[in-house]
Amino acid sequence: MNQVETFNRPIYIGIIGLGTVGTGAYKILTRNNQLIKKRLGVPLEIKRIADLDLDSDRGIPSLNKDLLTTDAYKVIDDPEIDIAVELIGGLEPAKTFILRALDKGKHVVTANKALLAHYGHEIFQKASHASLDVGFEASVGGGIPIIRAIREGFAANNIEAIYGIVNGTANYILSKMTNEGGDFTQVLEEAQRKGYAEQDPSLDIEGIDSAHKITILASLAFGANIPLSRVYTEGIAAISPLDIQYARHLGYRIKLLAIAKRVGEEIDIRVHPTLLPQETPLANVDNILNALYIVGDAVGKNMFVGEGAGAMPTGSAVVGDIIEVSRNILRGQGGRVPALGVLNPLIADCPIRKIGEIRSEYYLRFMAVDQPGVLARISGILGDHSISIASVLQKDREPKEGVPVVMMTHEALEKDIQLALKKIDQLEVVLARTTLIRAERDIS
Amino acid sequence: MNQVETFNRPIYIGIIGLGTVGTGAYKILTRNNQLIKKRLGVPLEIKRIADLDLDSDRGIPSLNKDLLTTDAYKVIDDPEIDIAVELIGGLEPAKTFILRALDKGKHVVTANKALLAHYGHEIFQKASHASLDVGFEASVGGGIPIIRAIREGFAANNIEAIYGIVNGTANYILSKMTNEGGDFTQVLEEAQRKGYAEQDPSLDIEGIDSAHKITILASLAFGANIPLSRVYTEGIAAISPLDIQYARHLGYRIKLLAIAKRVGEEIDIRVHPTLLPQETPLANVDNILNALYIVGDAVGKNMFVGEGAGAMPTGSAVVGDIIEVSRNILRGQGGRVPALGVLNPLIADCPIRKIGEIRSEYYLRFMAVDQPGVLARISGILGDHSISIASVLQKDREPKEGVPVVMMTHEALEKDIQLALKKIDQLEVVLARTTLIRAERDIS
Repeated sequence: MNQVETFNRPIYIGIIGLGTVGTGAYKILTRNNQLIKKRLGVPLEIKRIADLDLDSDRGIPSLNKDLLTTDAYKVIDDPEIDIAVELIGGLEPAKTFILRALDKGKHVVTANKALLAHYGHEIFQKASHASLDVGFEASVGGGIPIIRAIREGFAANNIEAIYGIVNGTANYILSKMTNEGGDFTQVLEEAQRKGYAEQDPSLDIEGIDSAHKITILASLAFGANIPLSRVYTEGIAAISPLDIQYARHLGYRIKLLAIAKRVGEEIDIRVHPTLLPQETPLANVDNILNALYIVGDAVGKNMFVGEGAGAMPTGSAVVGDIIEVSRNILRGQGGRVPALGVLNPLIADCPIRKIGEIRSEYYLRFMAVDQPGVLARISGILGDHSISIASVLQKDREPKEGVPVVMMTHEALEKDIQLALKKIDQLEVVLARTTLIRAERDIS
Repeated sequence: MNQVETFNRPIYIGIIGLGTVGTGAYKILTRNNQLIKKRLGVPLEIKRIADLDLDSDRGIPSLNKDLLTTDAYKVIDDPEIDIAVELIGGLEPAKTFILRALDKGKHVVTANKALLAHYGHEIFQKASHASLDVGFEASVGGGIPIIRAIREGFAANNIEAIYGIVNGTANYILSKMTNEGGDFTQVLEEAQRKGYAEQDPSLDIEGIDSAHKITILASLAFGANIPLSRVYTEGIAAISPLDIQYARHLGYRIKLLAIAKRVGEEIDIRVHPTLLPQETPLANVDNILNALYIVGDAVGKNMFVGEGAGAMPTGSAVVGDIIEVSRNILRGQGGRVPALGVLNPLIADCPIRKIGEIRSEYYLRFMAVDQPGVLARISGILGDHSISIASVLQKDREPKEGVPVVMMTHEALEKDIQLALKKIDQLEVVLARTTLIRAERDIS
């Protein structure tokens, strides 16, 4: 006998935050309510929506103003509400709201990657103790069901690596610079005009948002606590049209990549601009699209591509989670799948590889004076540090800044590279700080 | 209080069929048993394996021969076995085995796309009545978690369309013909030597396997009964190097595509070689890879790419389902998610669009005598049938068979095309039956 047949009231939803994603979730819940009822057997009903701004026009004429409140506790403390949907983003007051909602016995659905990257452990632990669900599919990859894929689809696998293009703004900017030219500032301004970049774009362009997301994905993939502070993070603001052009000559495209790999007992986790061979699928995921490339010990390589942001794609993930949680509510079975895929008490700390200890191939651009022997001196220092050169590209002189000398190295240890560059940058024939961009070849 | 904490025995698995996929599932279950225990809290234990062939070496030295039996009923009738895993494929005796296992109160995991395409309705109905699960992630797309993605990840969406490259053998053959040349027979023989094609390849190259898979996906996507017999199916045996070459000149690549779209109240569902614009991602999924491209009304466009066959990828999906079903067993909650995503009694028949009523763009290759006025006669007949021509490619004469005249049409009604071709093929200046290949532009 299914419990679902004895459950004959709606499931009540409270939404905190009626911004872009909240509006998308609202639209989907209302527009597709008949479909959702066919899935669950009971309807979902939005009982209350909290937002500080009750006046802006959100393009939803059907919105019943009586549902609105400026007081989030009208959602959190309402005993009838089954699921609290947190869509305000940021650390506080979102953290307080979610912990209190769990205290009040509510399941939670959230799109808040910053919060989960910082305090996921605390939130998941509280939820686990209370057999409550925390749905967070919307926190990474927008509408791409990547959380479910890693946690359940690939549950049979030891995940070996994740490579992700997980920030649409950064990808838009790099794609534009690559395909249409223009320098970073110029393209950023255009992205801001089009609404693809925030007025304060720092989370996106500095790689912080990507670091949040890879922290969540790595926690899931490796069933481990990954401290956000240990994720080496570099943004895209220093990428110049020159490097994009040289990378292309060498057969690469530059993407802001979030990487998490198992290397022996350690996790190598980092976010930085990355050269990808131009024929690889990830290199060709452009504009605002996101992509996740997952390697499992059984499934091999899988790639997922879709819109990583926006009201409707992210709203799709939020409502998908609401449906999932509702299925558990109907059966009185919260916490059916552990948040990170392994039983919560078994989530362990995990050693993180120091950035100096990673091995990678490197793109190096030296700005040198145009005189005999310079190349020999640079490559001599590289050789002294066990760094071997795979290819060299020397371009026309640009008298003011010197001659760009571009090299791709074979795989080398990062700290050897850093030591060598320190010495090279002290040469009087080297006129500017050397540009370093890491390359990934393992993705095909 | 979680029921899982009171469950303190292994979950017992019985496998029927120790072929490629069975061997993969066995290896994963044994190799990753510690990981799986961390997910579930209890171990999975293979209690019995049935196969008619007990002698072949399957490359698993650890296999305990005492588990083996030639009698499938030793699995099905063993009251201790919780999950029966059917991996023999084909209609019978697989159908009898699965129905009987459900009668005996066992959950079922299967990779059997032919069986589910023919008899899914009956199997899912029986499972639903008994609150038992039938896991079938492995039936489509190998290790790609596409069943979960559509049913749960995109649960908030009305799915609008699915485009799939779901047969690795056909994709391998077409990719080889495209990238390296060679005619169909030659490349098929090479694929057979490499083990990418069966000795009897008809299910794969005639599109039947793809039809099975799109039937399952469409049933899920539209929450409907889709009769396999109504899926228009064309294979790839008639694709000639000539057409691959002309398609390339026109900016297309040819893929065996499985298509299911909602068109008004009807479902347009079909499998056939298809011209795809060469810059679209699906057009570049090559060799044995599979890809699914899903369009939802909220999530927009998503694409999934991975290995669609083979022991380990498909085994990954099988074991993922075993883990999922085990979570339900631990909580005494079978049938938590309806097999097709909407409650079983609400699965309705759904009108299928007749092939004559579809609208598409078409690639047409006429073989005509080389004399004045031929093009005018052909295009006149097309015009009489409301078919307008987007581009024409006329190649060098090949005296024996005539001159190939290649046209791309604008969107037209299939039955108009068929009527026009019937008349054109009766012209004395047309020397062979005209080749027709449909094109899809909606995928970007």
